[in-house]
Amino acid sequence: MSEPKVAIVPQAGGPLGKAVEDAGGTLVPPGEADALVWTDPSSPESLRTTLESSPARWIQLPFAGIERFVEAGVIDDRHTWTCAKGIYGPATGEHALTLTLAAARLLNRHIRSRTWLGDREMEAPERRLGTSTVMIVGTGGIGGALRDMLVPIGPRIIGVNRSGRPFEGAERIVRAENVLDAVGDADFIVLAAPATDATRHLVDMRFLEAMNENAWVINVARGSLIDTGALVKALEAETIGGAALDVTEPEPLPDDHPLWRLDSVIITGHTANTWPMAVPELARLVERNVARFGAGEDLEGIVDPRLGY
Amino acid sequence: MSEPKVAIVPQAGGPLGKAVEDAGGTLVPPGEADALVWTDPSSPESLRTTLESSPARWIQLPFAGIERFVEAGVIDDRHTWTCAKGIYGPATGEHALTLTLAAARLLNRHIRSRTWLGDREMEAPERRLGTSTVMIVGTGGIGGALRDMLVPIGPRIIGVNRSGRPFEGAERIVRAENVLDAVGDADFIVLAAPATDATRHLVDMRFLEAMNENAWVINVARGSLIDTGALVKALEAETIGGAALDVTEPEPLPDDHPLWRLDSVIITGHTANTWPMAVPELARLVERNVARFGAGEDLEGIVDPRLGY
Repeated sequence: MSEPKVAIVPQAGGPLGKAVEDAGGTLVPPGEADALVWTDPSSPESLRTTLESSPARWIQLPFAGIERFVEAGVIDDRHTWTCAKGIYGPATGEHALTLTLAAARLLNRHIRSRTWLGDREMEAPERRLGTSTVMIVGTGGIGGALRDMLVPIGPRIIGVNRSGRPFEGAERIVRAENVLDAVGDADFIVLAAPATDATRHLVDMRFLEAMNENAWVINVARGSLIDTGALVKALEAETIGGAALDVTEPEPLPDDHPLWRLDSVIITGHTANTWPMAVPELARLVERNVARFGAGEDLEGIVDPRLGY
Repeated sequence: MSEPKVAIVPQAGGPLGKAVEDAGGTLVPPGEADALVWTDPSSPESLRTTLESSPARWIQLPFAGIERFVEAGVIDDRHTWTCAKGIYGPATGEHALTLTLAAARLLNRHIRSRTWLGDREMEAPERRLGTSTVMIVGTGGIGGALRDMLVPIGPRIIGVNRSGRPFEGAERIVRAENVLDAVGDADFIVLAAPATDATRHLVDMRFLEAMNENAWVINVARGSLIDTGALVKALEAETIGGAALDVTEPEPLPDDHPLWRLDSVIITGHTANTWPMAVPELARLVERNVARFGAGEDLEGIVDPRLGY
């Protein structure tokens, strides 16, 4: 068992540094490191430059979705790459639950109002989530965390995944290829699937047309899962209930984008799993992986450079 | 077993009428009724007038909180009174969860913003509810429903009640008389206790001063539990994080009230358990109670005229 030399870049120290040392590692500059813990989710070029002068063999990336690094061509097969897939399910699932409840209880209307909006006759009034139907698209870590939180609330759950494999707690499982057959049965549709070619613009004009007129789409995955232009049209025509978006395409959403003007929209600025929320989970992963690296064991969260995740 | 003659007033028909008939009752006008199902939560005087010309011996009230009827002196000891206590816990608990998550995730800021509020450095950023501490004041039906929904999310729970009796899932139980000792440990304080003399202005200046500076108070009980003037002062001075209020004092809150101008406030206009949400639950209660009335059995939700609940 060796004592791994680990660099934390670009920002060293704090709970991640403690995690490295607790796992028996030594903190060193990148030029002397066996391993890099990369802490900036949005700067693949800077990582490429760092790697040019570092002997590191293993790079730990800080988030689960690493498409920026893949698109920039940084993920090569000369290094071992790990990402934080799987560890942020509870944080992001909690945000998905927040947005789903906000949609059911029409917080978009109540929070923007400066006058009492009481229990009046409305065409589409507040709803109980507990007596609604939630479709969860993507039954991995985030979808599973959301499901666990929905169970005591009580909605019917429809799970959607590629293979049709079982999803505990779901009344029904639908294969992704058949999703349009089930969309109309859902009151709230939560997108919790990875960004891939297969999920790009999953929510397109046909999907939106299949939604029922009070249904909301909630996106805590990636902006690319929704055709934003088609969504704006559906919201403007009021053929769906609303959209709660933690992620958008483009991102950040420019100030002149029509989504900002729609009262049936909630936008939370990619805060489902913020850096302060993520650090404690990431620190635990870094501690486990540095210990495994030192012991020559398999690392957690290995990225396949060819698949890109 | 008799066939009870039941009047539904002021609005007859619908699911409640079906519930009466399903329980073996007959729908009649108030002047011929053995029992009245009163459907308007806000008109004690109108009920008094109806009773003057009705032989009804039993009156079923539609909501759990009946202080308006008590204050109006309508609740007498010449009739048997039942209210809907206990059946709306899940609806109101769900709303309490919605407001608590909205507070943790700062939906008050995100929903009011017309520009991207991303993952930036903020003095009081978004928080995970799952790693926070929730104090539940009132461990009855609403508090218990909220607790059940919090468990899979993961926060520490502090329960507050008069007797100090156990509350499953709580890390700690505090007697109401000692609540000030524990307030500072909570990130989110949910008020779910009945309106009584003992709970009137429970959240006063001293309570607010004991709260930590990022803590939120969430009220799904009754407006009278909070000293509104003291709350406005604490919010304006930013000595607490915010307030999420389904109920207020006065109610409805007038348009010129200072609470409407504060960005750290969420107001949902007494919609925790709206009439459309309540009717299915109330119909089931009416069915059970009409059947019991016909069979001469004890009714569910009996009101003690002297205690007023």
